[in-house]
Amino acid sequence: MARPTPTPATGSHDIVDRVTRRLAVLDDPTRPERQAFRVIHADTALQEAEASARRHAQGLALGPLDGCILSVKDLFDEAGEVTIAGAPVRASAPPAQTDATAVQRLKQAGAIIIGRTHMSEFAFSGIGINAAFGTPGNPRDATRIPGGSSSGAAASVGYGMCDIGLGSDTGGSVRIPAALCGLTGFKPTSGHVPLDGAFPLSPTLDTIGPIARTVAECAHAFAVLSDRPGLLPPTRSAARLSRHRLGIIRTDSVYDGAEPAVLAAMRTAEQALRAAGATPVDVDITDILDGLAHLDGLGLFPAIELAAILAGLSPAETRQIDPRIWSRVVPGYAVSATTYLAMQEQRRVMIARMSALMAGYDALLLPTVPVTAPRIDSLDDDEAFRRTNGLLLRNTRIGNLLDLPSSSLPIPTDELPVGLMLWGARGQDKQVLLLSHLIESALAGRPPATL
Amino acid sequence: MARPTPTPATGSHDIVDRVTRRLAVLDDPTRPERQAFRVIHADTALQEAEASARRHAQGLALGPLDGCILSVKDLFDEAGEVTIAGAPVRASAPPAQTDATAVQRLKQAGAIIIGRTHMSEFAFSGIGINAAFGTPGNPRDATRIPGGSSSGAAASVGYGMCDIGLGSDTGGSVRIPAALCGLTGFKPTSGHVPLDGAFPLSPTLDTIGPIARTVAECAHAFAVLSDRPGLLPPTRSAARLSRHRLGIIRTDSVYDGAEPAVLAAMRTAEQALRAAGATPVDVDITDILDGLAHLDGLGLFPAIELAAILAGLSPAETRQIDPRIWSRVVPGYAVSATTYLAMQEQRRVMIARMSALMAGYDALLLPTVPVTAPRIDSLDDDEAFRRTNGLLLRNTRIGNLLDLPSSSLPIPTDELPVGLMLWGARGQDKQVLLLSHLIESALAGRPPATL
Repeated sequence: MARPTPTPATGSHDIVDRVTRRLAVLDDPTRPERQAFRVIHADTALQEAEASARRHAQGLALGPLDGCILSVKDLFDEAGEVTIAGAPVRASAPPAQTDATAVQRLKQAGAIIIGRTHMSEFAFSGIGINAAFGTPGNPRDATRIPGGSSSGAAASVGYGMCDIGLGSDTGGSVRIPAALCGLTGFKPTSGHVPLDGAFPLSPTLDTIGPIARTVAECAHAFAVLSDRPGLLPPTRSAARLSRHRLGIIRTDSVYDGAEPAVLAAMRTAEQALRAAGATPVDVDITDILDGLAHLDGLGLFPAIELAAILAGLSPAETRQIDPRIWSRVVPGYAVSATTYLAMQEQRRVMIARMSALMAGYDALLLPTVPVTAPRIDSLDDDEAFRRTNGLLLRNTRIGNLLDLPSSSLPIPTDELPVGLMLWGARGQDKQVLLLSHLIESALAGRPPATL
Repeated sequence: MARPTPTPATGSHDIVDRVTRRLAVLDDPTRPERQAFRVIHADTALQEAEASARRHAQGLALGPLDGCILSVKDLFDEAGEVTIAGAPVRASAPPAQTDATAVQRLKQAGAIIIGRTHMSEFAFSGIGINAAFGTPGNPRDATRIPGGSSSGAAASVGYGMCDIGLGSDTGGSVRIPAALCGLTGFKPTSGHVPLDGAFPLSPTLDTIGPIARTVAECAHAFAVLSDRPGLLPPTRSAARLSRHRLGIIRTDSVYDGAEPAVLAAMRTAEQALRAAGATPVDVDITDILDGLAHLDGLGLFPAIELAAILAGLSPAETRQIDPRIWSRVVPGYAVSATTYLAMQEQRRVMIARMSALMAGYDALLLPTVPVTAPRIDSLDDDEAFRRTNGLLLRNTRIGNLLDLPSSSLPIPTDELPVGLMLWGARGQDKQVLLLSHLIESALAGRPPATL
């Protein structure tokens, strides 16, 4: 399935050639690949490719990301670009003066930024439909949604235009499109990747992470994004899957509404893990979900925090926001400060409770999303949109509320893609990437390569 | 005025003797010294004194706090004690299971905790009157308020029962009683002393700091509280006052309602500084105060955050709270979450603006409080209480809102005590303590001793 190692071109000619060929594809406005992007950085991408090729030719390559082709979600500041964040109301904002820290770090590692990708408006939907700027097709079936909010990030990788798409994940926005497009996504523990220069949705829950084909590419991107170059062990030979304490979540409510294809893929995944020597145990998280239901009953962080961010807009400006997005922001204005503080406290309590549970496991597994990518035209109806959005976000958002590092890996299948989600203990991002790599190999039925 | 160096007893006999003599005073319930305390730890204080004396006799003293006699404000957890926080409604709370981190650190440094001190209810008043548990008298004139909320902390030191009183400062609660009682207080930058195990008033603004006679004692306590043993330079000989960039705040509004005695003391202080070689410049902070007025117009952090903390109380329980305290909590329930988030954002903006201003100075100076300690009986009237409370907190709370490290030093005077407040740049706590020490010496008209 996935390629075992990151594949930046290493020959001088290769790098420029790869970028040139992709820019040629993206030069055609009718191509589906182009629909992943709001902006193409043709000139600078070519310059960066030439600079990378020179470094490689001189033996001065900066590391595994040098020469990799990346896309940047349209909520990250890039100097000179308007950060629109999928919102028409921001189209007239002044251009950013400096790069977001995440973008800065990727560029300093030699990454070639080929363009800015489409997204759900204000990143506030897991579906990836953007009524104003257009919706990238799912690379596996363009009539289906790519998932969101990092829709273009996933499509840019799935369509083969990029090695890595830089996304953000507040309730699943990296992992949902990764799962629906058959890709790998990683959401770190909060605080590991600085948020400055990223247009916020919910500062309490916002995280920044990569979408790529392989765990290795995600791990290299995360090492750069988190400025932890020593993050990854040099080889994986010593760490066998049988030594790790894995749990599979069996609680019914994470399977509610699951498609047979998803349930079948989960069985496939479990068999592959057992074949690779893993002995996952059944885990019930009813208590955790009850505590989160209490939290949900108080209010929703993204609604409240986006409401605060948009509080300065005029009525005429708010009318420019997609009603399917805005209608979910408005309830945020009705929540009291004391309720908001009670939410923060309840979140702290739940994070502590989950940490206690996670002490018994290296990782827990569950389906990233319970369905495969729905058809775009099935979501014309507002109620279908609302219901599907909730279903897509249901499992992933648990990881944001509990601040868990979490990845989504594609489960091999001949049908539409299905994602297997890993949760690790808070702050154990390295462990999650390591285990994701072992599980990726197990799913592919081959021994793990050097990471 | 103040003693130049910290004076823990160093002879074995001395330490036990000092504690024994103080416990004898505190054994008499009618003594004014006893009114500073809610609880006396007679047995454990004597045991701790004996242990400290043994360490000193064996040459194994733990550092400058070993053998110092401390009091702990009644909002810090001590294992086995009920943390009442000045609130009758908390009298039936279960005893704490472990010590607050601040208390733990002081004990580990050899401090002798002699008792728990009275405070304003929930620490939510700068006056120090506690209708339920009684109000410690001001050690300089028992008919006057000690200031609050760390009223007993200051009184315990002012009455000579303790070397150091552990207090907390959310809007001035360390510095106000230090100023009104003729003592030295230090409020660190937030985050420097862990808040866990301290009953919260406003987690956004809460800080923990010492009250003592001298800057050196405060500095030693802060080094232990912040777990930064290398905090203080070994000697002060190299750092002369003339080398430091001092500013005196001249903006009218920090002098509104100032008593002639306070204005005279400020002139005395300025003359002493100039005599010691300092060349303070005039500083205007009108812009900063305008930005804070905008913040105040949105809401008050302590009201909102204490409202959230007390949200679980029944109506019968809230009726146990002093109406002068509760009436200032209630408006907190009416603030929306989005307004609260706007307050947090405006605070961040103002902190950045103040950091830019502070880049030009090592410290800014102003009166801690514009008045000397009012008579207790002058505050029977609710309106007088409200007005005086606002006046006492007005200058100090600026430092909490802007997250500045800040000390209050006694200005030599034959009248009632007046405090000189220092502000340093955020995070420059060491610099503030160093400068406070130089200024303390200048105010006393002598060269600085070794710190």
